[in-house]
Amino acid sequence: MNLPSRLMEDAVEAFASLPGIGRKTALRMVLHLLRRDAADVDRFGAAVVRLRREIRFCQTCRNASDADVCSICANPTRNKGMVCVVENIRDLLAIEQTGQYHGRYHVLGGVISPIDGIGPDQLEIASLLERAKAGEIREAIMAVPPTIEGDTTIYYLSNRLEPLGVKVSTIARGVSFGGDLEYVDELTLARSIATRRPYSNAAGPESSNP
Amino acid sequence: MNLPSRLMEDAVEAFASLPGIGRKTALRMVLHLLRRDAADVDRFGAAVVRLRREIRFCQTCRNASDADVCSICANPTRNKGMVCVVENIRDLLAIEQTGQYHGRYHVLGGVISPIDGIGPDQLEIASLLERAKAGEIREAIMAVPPTIEGDTTIYYLSNRLEPLGVKVSTIARGVSFGGDLEYVDELTLARSIATRRPYSNAAGPESSNP
Repeated sequence: MNLPSRLMEDAVEAFASLPGIGRKTALRMVLHLLRRDAADVDRFGAAVVRLRREIRFCQTCRNASDADVCSICANPTRNKGMVCVVENIRDLLAIEQTGQYHGRYHVLGGVISPIDGIGPDQLEIASLLERAKAGEIREAIMAVPPTIEGDTTIYYLSNRLEPLGVKVSTIARGVSFGGDLEYVDELTLARSIATRRPYSNAAGPESSNP
Repeated sequence: MNLPSRLMEDAVEAFASLPGIGRKTALRMVLHLLRRDAADVDRFGAAVVRLRREIRFCQTCRNASDADVCSICANPTRNKGMVCVVENIRDLLAIEQTGQYHGRYHVLGGVISPIDGIGPDQLEIASLLERAKAGEIREAIMAVPPTIEGDTTIYYLSNRLEPLGVKVSTIARGVSFGGDLEYVDELTLARSIATRRPYSNAAGPESSNP
């Protein structure tokens, strides 16, 4: 679609670069912004720029934060000895949303995926092992996606965490294979944390040895 | 959902204020922007702010434009005597997209709706009548939505345009191409029979483009 203005074209291109937004939806947003108060649109633009420029990542768990330490790590009522290992901030937020977990987190920034060239060095694994070496962690709950890459990551981490005296568990598989944590309903997600099971890499993935 | 950062919260609120975007989709966009290059996100923010601050509206037809006169009104190959009257810029773009119309436009900025307190003075009607008085317009095609408000607007405009020597027409209303008669609403189907047109296979299918 040829737009009558370069300014509109630039704005439509910007919105269409967002996930799940096509040119038609982007145009709808742009026409909406044209009708809005100019000061209001300035605030929109500033919020976007400040988000990216001023966001910090927690030096302990790599969660997004306004300060050096995130609000979860800074909260003295959260269980310091329990760390929930997640792939990304979206999954952390999904678990927080359940209101059923009172430990801390560690955001890996991805999972081990040799096909995509993502090895342990590309992830926040060294920082997790440092936390474990400091004796901070008693139990690590693996809440990574139930995929081959997720299982590989759990296997890799358990081999390194268990010698450091960390009990490794995984969230219960009430979550369907190939599913995105973000879209799981809160009850299932909360239950899967409450019914986590000890991980034993000797037994292989998903064996049930009581 | 409680977000770990005020910056994220502000950005999510900004995106969630757009039409059709809920908090969950907004959060997805924000997390996407966090992974993008900072300079790229700066450009996003600037495109939004510049859009609203620097956009102009064509002094002739009120279309969005980078200059005082829009690219359509400035195009000497467009038929100056024919003006398509539309409710908003989105409808103008939809008609342009067909590539079948070679006249000019006039963007009303809405339709007459007494219930919503929108009278002729709130719309770009005076500017349309001025164009007619200047003798610029031979025919005005009413391409406003087929609603009570749209019909009211057409009635009002035709009463004022015809004395100025402007021929007033409306876009054809009827069954859409490829549509199943079975699913067309009764009013449209009844009207499309009442306003049937003579068939002439000599002229070819749906000829006579303006």
